Amino acid sequence: MSCNFGEKFKITIFGQSHSEAIGVVIDGVPAGITLDGEKIASFMARRAPGKNAYSTKRKEADCPEIVSGVVDGITCGTPICAIIRNSDQHSKDYSKLKILPRPSHSDFAAYMKHGGFNDIRGGGNFSGRMTAPMCFAGAVAMQILEKKGIKIGAHIEKIAGVCDTRFDPVNPDISTLDGKDFPLINDSVKDEMLAKIEAARLDCDSVGGVIECAVTGLPVGLGEPMFGGVENVLSQAMFAVPAIKGIEFGNGFDCADLKGSENNDEFTVNDGKITTVTNNHGGILGGLTSGMPLIFRVAVKPTPSISKPQMTVNLETNKPEELVIEGRHDPCIVPRAVPCIEAATAIALINLI
Amino acid sequence: MSCNFGEKFKITIFGQSHSEAIGVVIDGVPAGITLDGEKIASFMARRAPGKNAYSTKRKEADCPEIVSGVVDGITCGTPICAIIRNSDQHSKDYSKLKILPRPSHSDFAAYMKHGGFNDIRGGGNFSGRMTAPMCFAGAVAMQILEKKGIKIGAHIEKIAGVCDTRFDPVNPDISTLDGKDFPLINDSVKDEMLAKIEAARLDCDSVGGVIECAVTGLPVGLGEPMFGGVENVLSQAMFAVPAIKGIEFGNGFDCADLKGSENNDEFTVNDGKITTVTNNHGGILGGLTSGMPLIFRVAVKPTPSISKPQMTVNLETNKPEELVIEGRHDPCIVPRAVPCIEAATAIALINLI
Amino acid sequence: MSCNFGEKFKITIFGQSHSEAIGVVIDGVPAGITLDGEKIASFMARRAPGKNAYSTKRKEADCPEIVSGVVDGITCGTPICAIIRNSDQHSKDYSKLKILPRPSHSDFAAYMKHGGFNDIRGGGNFSGRMTAPMCFAGAVAMQILEKKGIKIGAHIEKIAGVCDTRFDPVNPDISTLDGKDFPLINDSVKDEMLAKIEAARLDCDSVGGVIECAVTGLPVGLGEPMFGGVENVLSQAMFAVPAIKGIEFGNGFDCADLKGSENNDEFTVNDGKITTVTNNHGGILGGLTSGMPLIFRVAVKPTPSISKPQMTVNLETNKPEELVIEGRHDPCIVPRAVPCIEAATAIALINLI
Amino acid sequence: MSCNFGEKFKITIFGQSHSEAIGVVIDGVPAGITLDGEKIASFMARRAPGKNAYSTKRKEADCPEIVSGVVDGITCGTPICAIIRNSDQHSKDYSKLKILPRPSHSDFAAYMKHGGFNDIRGGGNFSGRMTAPMCFAGAVAMQILEKKGIKIGAHIEKIAGVCDTRFDPVNPDISTLDGKDFPLINDSVKDEMLAKIEAARLDCDSVGGVIECAVTGLPVGLGEPMFGGVENVLSQAMFAVPAIKGIEFGNGFDCADLKGSENNDEFTVNDGKITTVTNNHGGILGGLTSGMPLIFRVAVKPTPSISKPQMTVNLETNKPEELVIEGRHDPCIVPRAVPCIEAATAIALINLI
Repeated sequence: MSCNFGEKFKITIFGQSHSEAIGVVIDGVPAGITLDGEKIASFMARRAPGKNAYSTKRKEADCPEIVSGVVDGITCGTPICAIIRNSDQHSKDYSKLKILPRPSHSDFAAYMKHGGFNDIRGGGNFSGRMTAPMCFAGAVAMQILEKKGIKIGAHIEKIAGVCDTRFDPVNPDISTLDGKDFPLINDSVKDEMLAKIEAARLDCDSVGGVIECAVTGLPVGLGEPMFGGVENVLSQAMFAVPAIKGIEFGNGFDCADLKGSENNDEFTVNDGKITTVTNNHGGILGGLTSGMPLIFRVAVKPTPSISKPQMTVNLETNKPEELVIEGRHDPCIVPRAVPCIEAATAIALINLI
Repeated sequence: MSCNFGEKFKITIFGQSHSEAIGVVIDGVPAGITLDGEKIASFMARRAPGKNAYSTKRKEADCPEIVSGVVDGITCGTPICAIIRNSDQHSKDYSKLKILPRPSHSDFAAYMKHGGFNDIRGGGNFSGRMTAPMCFAGAVAMQILEKKGIKIGAHIEKIAGVCDTRFDPVNPDISTLDGKDFPLINDSVKDEMLAKIEAARLDCDSVGGVIECAVTGLPVGLGEPMFGGVENVLSQAMFAVPAIKGIEFGNGFDCADLKGSENNDEFTVNDGKITTVTNNHGGILGGLTSGMPLIFRVAVKPTPSISKPQMTVNLETNKPEELVIEGRHDPCIVPRAVPCIEAATAIALINLI
Repeated sequence: MSCNFGEKFKITIFGQSHSEAIGVVIDGVPAGITLDGEKIASFMARRAPGKNAYSTKRKEADCPEIVSGVVDGITCGTPICAIIRNSDQHSKDYSKLKILPRPSHSDFAAYMKHGGFNDIRGGGNFSGRMTAPMCFAGAVAMQILEKKGIKIGAHIEKIAGVCDTRFDPVNPDISTLDGKDFPLINDSVKDEMLAKIEAARLDCDSVGGVIECAVTGLPVGLGEPMFGGVENVLSQAMFAVPAIKGIEFGNGFDCADLKGSENNDEFTVNDGKITTVTNNHGGILGGLTSGMPLIFRVAVKPTPSISKPQMTVNLETNKPEELVIEGRHDPCIVPRAVPCIEAATAIALINLI
Repeated sequence: MSCNFGEKFKITIFGQSHSEAIGVVIDGVPAGITLDGEKIASFMARRAPGKNAYSTKRKEADCPEIVSGVVDGITCGTPICAIIRNSDQHSKDYSKLKILPRPSHSDFAAYMKHGGFNDIRGGGNFSGRMTAPMCFAGAVAMQILEKKGIKIGAHIEKIAGVCDTRFDPVNPDISTLDGKDFPLINDSVKDEMLAKIEAARLDCDSVGGVIECAVTGLPVGLGEPMFGGVENVLSQAMFAVPAIKGIEFGNGFDCADLKGSENNDEFTVNDGKITTVTNNHGGILGGLTSGMPLIFRVAVKPTPSISKPQMTVNLETNKPEELVIEGRHDPCIVPRAVPCIEAATAIALINLI
């Protein structure tokens, strides 16, 4: 089923963009863990819309109500359910999309899958809004991981061709990213990125990018061979974030052009601990964590909902027809997708521990 | 668990490179399906080692014995178990690797995970040999998919920087690849690729590459949103093939540099059927199949087992030590990985139908 | 995980007796199904407390709010989440139970499992209240099953030694039970049962009983051999209803005293359809449905929460101590458990179809 | 799927009674565990046929070959696969059963389920023979449980109306049963039971019975509320043993006739440890282990395959027809089912730890 992920920290996500509420049930959180509600709220605020020029004008409080699993701020060993009410909805914006599917959006496939009964309002459960409960679950997972010394940080590696510095794969500095709304390693590229986004917005268009994520503090040997490897589990989680079209670990697609002698990471001893000199493998060997930092990148496609006129097909007449999408859409979702990638990473990794 | 994949066509893979046998149990195959044993054998032969200059000198018959689930060549509705005996093993080759982990191989992580009790012989269950039962399961899945008009084909998109032509994403011609041991769309690049591989072999080194896969005949609407999407399920399967370090769908990482208006695939009508004019989305929208050909690429790292001397750490002394890997290894695993990618694709897709 | 059940119609139950809310997520309901809200409400009313002398004085509206998965009364193919607010709570009643576990209740085991962090209020998530969301899910499942001609009905087979007539196993008449709050085949035993319950109540005690359930309209061949059989799946669901201590199918434990020639159900032809003459097998052969009515019975223990003084152990002092349970408890939960058994049956069976 | 059980100690059973082999894959056994092969063999010998007057004349070595997961007698952390070759098969015995389903056997339901493609030989995968790999898995689980001080023992509580003494529920003596082929607490009833079985055999008939199982050494708090409780998991495993028609925990169906004050088990302190004075609850409270001995009973129906003429329906003509079953069948399977119940118990419990 599509709404479930994980065996140990099992999440079940429900809701549609414009249903009464969206939310998540988390099963498997041990009893006795104190949850820091403010930390959860500030993490979710990074994903929430309506704050910046580059994000949609919709304003959603995205304030989760925890209805079960927590007593006086402490987990009690039963499933945690958090609910987020949908409020600032403009459902009428979407009425015509039922029969005029947006290019490169889920509309057409969802219509065919559900015989027209899919909830088209706001993209239904294909909406990026569904990452809000995922971020809640990720924020809970992160608090548990942090107590084990595991830290997750992601940054905008690229937007519209403008590149940030990549992580040092052997020693990524996650701390500099902490809490940034527009997380970059090299903040000097921020203005150029913002200019590209603004230009796209004014042109009724959108731009894409790449997000890079690093995880430190992982012990050696997490994951399982074959289908339960770290890459398998992380990639399954990552593609739950809408608009992700590719993922690569370590040096990724670049490894295809290297020789084994160039790509292999030799072992050495550092302060008595076995490490590798380089980290082309991105912290994963044979599907297991190697003890080196976990490094991966995901490709984010440009927002498909643009205001420029586009050709589509009317599902009632089966004839081509021009479509001008109204409503409020992000000209670039990369910044808001960063915390989603961190959340998906936390959810995936906590299931391997 | 790592050895399981799928809910409807559920496979369970067992064995180690040098255990008595390896094999797979397939649960969920309906009763009454006639299996073409020769077709299974010829598919598995594409993966089998020992045939070419670019593959290991090991000779493994890789002849699966079906011990259950099939009566007189027809499935009877119960789990199919196929067993492949391990025969041509040189276990002594691996004795020293127990304490001298090979760079960029699973040895170190597996040792730490299992407290030294991991089966190091031939790489244990991290071995590429484990793709043999996966190919058996894939061959069974393919026969069922073909009856539904679904065809899968992959080719070597790149080896050591030498590139094949990519699939036409709107109309990929899979039929030209059928049965090729060294599958290329443009066969004229074969000699250059082989020369690169041979040069690496003579230099005690290895090379990597990229495999591109296409699937035609898929209906619209397969897959589920969030964690059950086509990308999620395919990527989870793909990373079960050792040495895969990245995956991208459609135009993949290239989409990051495009504008929405460039990347979006407009809808049109073709012979009364709704299609897209371009196929940057690679046949997947919102995690669901769009009816267009499914296109994706995976990065294959150069074989980590090379004969060149490399530095590692002795796990008993905790001191750096030089390692010269003996044994027989492929200087390039890309050609033999092609049927594995096809098999993993078949296994993933049949679970979505 | 304990809060999940099923693969096709997958339910996830959350909440504690006195948390903000309880609820359920149902994944796998196809799009396009019109749900009858009144039918759901009237089914849930049968389980709701506060209506009769034999049930607790708590009054819970038990009015589910559907927050996702349904648009204008029709399912849209995404998970259905229903939430029931907890309102009439007297949490102070339970304060001392944290350290004085009630005999034959979950308190002691839950305390040990969760290191004292379990939610003791109202029994937490071990409470019978958790059957409310189960009944919601069951009511949805029943509506889908009824469209396939499958009907489920249960009655009070016994309370405090007073027995109702059993179902005719070959031709059980479910229709006579429809909607009864105190469902009996032979209504003439009702007064005697009620008298036994009232006597127990006046004596600060409680009584148990047996519930018998029948299902008609099942096709032949549902279920799977081994672990996926009808008995396996039904029993796994049934023991989720608190206080159930046993289950038997067909003639159940009585078969132990019969000879094969007495117990075997011979086949015959009825109106061209193959049936069995008798139905000792209760509609299940080899774990599969036989096409005959499904018949089973469950034992319900007397409510463990009684007002009579009982000995327990103080978990802080580790010394025996007398306990007098206050609060409002059913002197007999059998009548309210009947719809829970029907709901659990519906949830189990819909996963086999 | 029907052939899988468990999440932590996950077993996958394959094979049919007369296929080339039957077997089991066990995933989740940690590396570094020394398996006692002789202990496994002697446990499996208790289930094996052909030894006694009351068991079938078939002789099956039932000698499992471990083909993966174990190196030099020690587990290596990867799935253990054990294979048992089928040898002493008389497949011709079953030819006519394809169209003449045996009363109270799976034949008819399996035929309908699989459109006639089911493997009828020896009952296919509905055969009691499938408990052989289950016993292998159980024997492995038991060795792991025993290292944690958990012991499992079952005895014949009843055969053909002749009763053994029941376990003392507070202090069951499992040790006296150890290794008995015909396990009884009170051996003086053995002759009477054997006489009943022999009488049934001579009369071309069969008899049923009840098996009682006890487990000691379980810690407090195993299991989960709702669907993951000890009763849920044990019953799901138990009904995988063919011919089981009912299960009851603690005092089981007898609790229905008791008052709460009679049925409740008061807490007390014994040598500083919290226990209950009585054990009507059978060691399970709220689905969790209470620390008291686990006690349950299962009903075993008389072997359905009897030689007495019986009426069935010819599936080709759809007309009633007399059937005389040939082949070799146990007049009573209760003794051989005892180790199966122990094995199913071990498999279920190890998944809760």
